[in-house]
Amino acid sequence: MMNLMTSLIGLGSHLAGWRHPDAWSHTSMNLDHAIQIAKLAERGKFDLLFLADGNAVRQMDKPELFAANSRSDRPAVFEPLTLLAALSQHTSHIGLFATATTTYDEPYLLARRFASLDHLSKGRACWNIVTGSYAGDSVNFGRAEHVPRGERYARAREFVQVCMGLWDSWAEDAFIEDKATGRYLDPGKVQRLDHEGRFFSVQGPLNVARPPQGYPLLFTAGQSEEGREMAAELAEGLFSVCTTKEEAQEFYADIKSRMAKYGRAPDALRILPGCTIYVGRSEAEAEELYEELQTLIVPSLGVAYLSKFCEADLSGYPLDGPLPDLSAEVAGVASYRQAIAEMARRDKLTIRQTYQRVVPSLGHVLFKGNSIQIADQMEDWYRGKACDGFNIDMPVLPRCLGDFVDLVVPELQRRGLFRTEYAGGTLRETMGLARPARRIRARPDLAAE
Amino acid sequence: MMNLMTSLIGLGSHLAGWRHPDAWSHTSMNLDHAIQIAKLAERGKFDLLFLADGNAVRQMDKPELFAANSRSDRPAVFEPLTLLAALSQHTSHIGLFATATTTYDEPYLLARRFASLDHLSKGRACWNIVTGSYAGDSVNFGRAEHVPRGERYARAREFVQVCMGLWDSWAEDAFIEDKATGRYLDPGKVQRLDHEGRFFSVQGPLNVARPPQGYPLLFTAGQSEEGREMAAELAEGLFSVCTTKEEAQEFYADIKSRMAKYGRAPDALRILPGCTIYVGRSEAEAEELYEELQTLIVPSLGVAYLSKFCEADLSGYPLDGPLPDLSAEVAGVASYRQAIAEMARRDKLTIRQTYQRVVPSLGHVLFKGNSIQIADQMEDWYRGKACDGFNIDMPVLPRCLGDFVDLVVPELQRRGLFRTEYAGGTLRETMGLARPARRIRARPDLAAE
Repeated sequence: MMNLMTSLIGLGSHLAGWRHPDAWSHTSMNLDHAIQIAKLAERGKFDLLFLADGNAVRQMDKPELFAANSRSDRPAVFEPLTLLAALSQHTSHIGLFATATTTYDEPYLLARRFASLDHLSKGRACWNIVTGSYAGDSVNFGRAEHVPRGERYARAREFVQVCMGLWDSWAEDAFIEDKATGRYLDPGKVQRLDHEGRFFSVQGPLNVARPPQGYPLLFTAGQSEEGREMAAELAEGLFSVCTTKEEAQEFYADIKSRMAKYGRAPDALRILPGCTIYVGRSEAEAEELYEELQTLIVPSLGVAYLSKFCEADLSGYPLDGPLPDLSAEVAGVASYRQAIAEMARRDKLTIRQTYQRVVPSLGHVLFKGNSIQIADQMEDWYRGKACDGFNIDMPVLPRCLGDFVDLVVPELQRRGLFRTEYAGGTLRETMGLARPARRIRARPDLAAE
Repeated sequence: MMNLMTSLIGLGSHLAGWRHPDAWSHTSMNLDHAIQIAKLAERGKFDLLFLADGNAVRQMDKPELFAANSRSDRPAVFEPLTLLAALSQHTSHIGLFATATTTYDEPYLLARRFASLDHLSKGRACWNIVTGSYAGDSVNFGRAEHVPRGERYARAREFVQVCMGLWDSWAEDAFIEDKATGRYLDPGKVQRLDHEGRFFSVQGPLNVARPPQGYPLLFTAGQSEEGREMAAELAEGLFSVCTTKEEAQEFYADIKSRMAKYGRAPDALRILPGCTIYVGRSEAEAEELYEELQTLIVPSLGVAYLSKFCEADLSGYPLDGPLPDLSAEVAGVASYRQAIAEMARRDKLTIRQTYQRVVPSLGHVLFKGNSIQIADQMEDWYRGKACDGFNIDMPVLPRCLGDFVDLVVPELQRRGLFRTEYAGGTLRETMGLARPARRIRARPDLAAE
């Protein structure tokens, strides 16, 4: 069964999505929009509501772009755990996926918040473990320079181990609350952690009862070597970025093959690539929406995004002239750059036409068409072992989510690819993922006294 | 107008309150109880819902006491900001008061969470700034020893200044969201903070829009010299602990007199002593509840609490024998110890009888009687400048809160001492406290570029 996730950001995923006539107005920190997305996605039986996060306002040094953009710059967003706690009260089944960094937070504080959210939502919390790849976050935490990736991942692994240990503090039946005898709890059913590691020293126990799911569901998002290895070791979900099916299949096989050495079955981790969907009642309707959005892209913003993906500053070139030569080698992963250059050459595209091809999906795969065509493409990826489901970008909200739920979800259900009802109460039950057993420590503390 | 606050902890304030037949069962992390308290308190037009906090499980080294107690040990509680975010969706006017420490958290992260809660609740967030006086918290944050008080307060003051600066990041009208021009925001209406201090270096801006209240309401709770001075400088509410009216008057006059040097009017800070209320439809009914609860105190727990207040280990003495001589000088504030010794001598109390006098209020003032008698006592304190209102402990829940709302609130309203309707939407409007203006920095960043 496919797993589906979508974002809570009311702006829509297309850079110019908020400018479309069907888009919501007043999107800045609009709780009502988030509630509507959550309810709509739950009506569509989605697994998860996705909330990206970061700890800085981006792109302030480029005022023109900054003024035009909004979503990627994160100028004003709800803090994920507080927003999801609020949304837990408007929903009953959908998973609540909060991104939180291990680089600047404390494991005791973060373990508490996720445990608390898991209780408030009756077992629907999901933690997207990130190390904070954006260097600009660091200046808000007293650091002159970004923490190197190796360090960030080493800290992340220890951070997660500490959190798991803290979530194992209490047995499920520790709280007796026997009015007759006055015994509120059983002191033999709690354990300290006594963690002493390279980055953290945490005694425990956690002052929150064991989360309903044992641990919240654990997601990661990194695609670097370190990110792949951490995912294989401990992630139960992985948000990935791939532009082609072949690339996705390669990534999928790579991650799943790394799991065996950690004693994990391949299905214990679900890989969900980002996927932008333009769906219409007809193919023409989908195409029309797609084209309409291209005309709404502020040119400087389009060029800036194209520059980012091409790893080259294109702002000095004529907008309606050709893409300059990008054949020179650049550091880092250049495959997307080369794919763009190849596409522009083949189709004889101007810079404007090139960004109009790139902006609609921002590096994610793009599916376009009527519900049958969309379901065909999704099925092809799913059956072709390119993914276990999708993190679906909705270009214009609320329109595209509504259309997806009304048009595509029934088609996926008809094909037996997607649930027609939620399987259980907790997110782990919904996704068919095991509830971790509590690991009991041989310990020198309470029980021995 | 009096300000009233009550706690969200469903256990009740009396140590044995949870054992009473009228008390809720299954109180451990029970969201439904918190929702019921919130709705009941809002029906009673309370200003604030109070949530204490700490970052450790206490008293684990004494398994017998640990098993019997629960509330003060914080074995399993919701994390405040996530719980209050959830409760914001079940209420519309009552203030949401979250305790959060400045000693172990990061200002950028905490400023985000409070700003987010203020948006989610449409202007009802309140931060109880604490430095974490409980030494046992420190072992969960990699510290072998507790941070000394002077250091904690120095950090707290800088922490709060950073948060205020971050809340000033955005002008209220920064988000234009003009679909026609594609301008989402006005880059001239955001400022960096560029804070460089002893404890923190934070560039900003915050990635949350300016909170509806400007800043969340700021509370403190400390009564030390450092705590008093910080309250006078920046707190808008102060939770205090006093056992007698004279003591409360002295504290009240002291705090208010310290405010002038910070250019603040006395009414800009509200002092709310903790106050335990036993109310009944008749005086006899209140007395009966009070007596009933005494018999439910687990003796070892009663002796432990009495020992704590007397700063002397009383566990070796016969329960039904007299209180030993406590006339020796001890370090610290010994006034409560002496008051207890004097009361025991005067009334010829055994140890059991003494803890039965002490446990019902745990160091707070105790009012007992029918609604007229309770209102008389509250009015006496309020008009006598002993307080601006009360943080009311409810010995047994939900019974005592229900009785207070149904019996005492109407009597206070009849006397013109308490509101009959909420004055406005935000907590600041409800309490008649000014909304802080945004402080604009002369700055070298964006606007100048």
